[in-house]
Amino acid sequence: MNVTRTANIYKNIQQTICRTLEEADGIGRFTEDTWEKEIGSGITCVMQNGSIIEKAGVNFSCVRGSFNGNMAKLLGENATSFAATGISSIIHSGNPFVPTIHMNVRYFNLDNGSSWFGGGIDLTPAYINPDEAHWFHQTLKEICDKYDIGFYPEWKTWADDYFYLSHRQETRGIGGIFFDRIQPANDTYFEKMLNLTSDLANVYPQIYSRLMKENGHKPFSEAEKRWQKIRRGRYVEFNLIHDRGTKFGLESDGNIESILVSLPAEVEWVYQYHPKPGSPEATTQELLKKGIVWV
Amino acid sequence: MNVTRTANIYKNIQQTICRTLEEADGIGRFTEDTWEKEIGSGITCVMQNGSIIEKAGVNFSCVRGSFNGNMAKLLGENATSFAATGISSIIHSGNPFVPTIHMNVRYFNLDNGSSWFGGGIDLTPAYINPDEAHWFHQTLKEICDKYDIGFYPEWKTWADDYFYLSHRQETRGIGGIFFDRIQPANDTYFEKMLNLTSDLANVYPQIYSRLMKENGHKPFSEAEKRWQKIRRGRYVEFNLIHDRGTKFGLESDGNIESILVSLPAEVEWVYQYHPKPGSPEATTQELLKKGIVWV
Repeated sequence: MNVTRTANIYKNIQQTICRTLEEADGIGRFTEDTWEKEIGSGITCVMQNGSIIEKAGVNFSCVRGSFNGNMAKLLGENATSFAATGISSIIHSGNPFVPTIHMNVRYFNLDNGSSWFGGGIDLTPAYINPDEAHWFHQTLKEICDKYDIGFYPEWKTWADDYFYLSHRQETRGIGGIFFDRIQPANDTYFEKMLNLTSDLANVYPQIYSRLMKENGHKPFSEAEKRWQKIRRGRYVEFNLIHDRGTKFGLESDGNIESILVSLPAEVEWVYQYHPKPGSPEATTQELLKKGIVWV
Repeated sequence: MNVTRTANIYKNIQQTICRTLEEADGIGRFTEDTWEKEIGSGITCVMQNGSIIEKAGVNFSCVRGSFNGNMAKLLGENATSFAATGISSIIHSGNPFVPTIHMNVRYFNLDNGSSWFGGGIDLTPAYINPDEAHWFHQTLKEICDKYDIGFYPEWKTWADDYFYLSHRQETRGIGGIFFDRIQPANDTYFEKMLNLTSDLANVYPQIYSRLMKENGHKPFSEAEKRWQKIRRGRYVEFNLIHDRGTKFGLESDGNIESILVSLPAEVEWVYQYHPKPGSPEATTQELLKKGIVWV
């Protein structure tokens, strides 16, 4: 019952996200694909080639099925069936000064009695702007603080650890918050987490609207665009090598086009690319590390 | 001792590959980076922005170290230390009518007594040309047949199974041959496999020189170039999600720039891209399946 209720709320927020982003972009419109597989159903909303947004995916899904060996390994749980619902979204902008953003909220339910919320929001600028980073983290902190002042510091560190490319020894971007396996001990706690994840999903398009408004019309050079494409390569590496959501989707025979809509449109890999010392690119590169206190 | 001898032979072939490709390309030159890490050393030869070759990596490495838990899981073996040497190469062309090619030969030695050869060559055209596919497979078959007429049929099937994107339900390209864990039972068998893998590594740049000569100067449209970039997205997906060599490299703390030099320069992901029915792109898409008899 909790899954169905959560799913309905998340599904409505998906619409809010799409409408808010369409309004901020001005030109781009979301297409809506409803998919149904044995495992469940979902709605994949995708915008391609907007005025500022180059590619955005906003996925809602509600799935249930039998718990297989791979999931047991990924989740460290034993159960015979699971149900899950969530929203997962990534936005890539054509302008290198508008960061890539990611948001996910999810609720999991296993028939062994376990259930939990997870989620997070993280920002990946090609050019890190410290004022913007401060504002972004401050916005997340304020939402978390409404529910528990312990959440932000814990989840900020968690994001640093999760959105980390161990094979590159760099963070994906400036982080944000990440949390998983938050088990509601009782009904009150469930409501609290449902509200918190809803707040996060609702603030997400507002954050991005502001980022678009502030940076979306800045002129940029070919070299800056290229740097963005190279940074996007790292994004692809993270999603395909490390991201647990992507892995879970592939393992659970999810809808492949919906799972991989997270990948940016145009990407570039250059062997041994090192930005010039002292350049804005090098400054960003140096900030891709854990433990930076932005707020 | 076998590892050292094999390494020396492979290292020489790496040079032959680079010189042959430089001659065929005419303009592009390989840079040579020697790397040394705790695990061993290697030589990474890379060509970027040649006349036809857009990006090529030819890696030689010779590594040894302690056998960790992840390797045990990947290899299904128990041992305390390992030594390995190999050549691994991928070539991406700027012209969509020149396929992407991959070649790998490797020799593994564990201190539990196990040792084996592995390797393969496979071709990934953005536009499949059946005559070319026939010639490519025929070339591989002739080399295999010199050693054992059972090899080609077995290894061709193995390639179909290995170079397969299960999450897309399509093969990476037209396959080729793939083999692994070929344990030399005695010295004669070891020599046979050393010669066979050397032959394969030597024929590899010759195959590509011919593909460049026949297709490298064909004119192409923006739309054909775009299709190539989209197909390259699948190549990235295979390498980062499925490829055991890449996984092993990442697990064993290999040299990251050398491991990921396999990724193409410019790549594109488009949500729900489906080629027009009856188009050359759709024809290629239809041929991306297992079990096609090319020779």
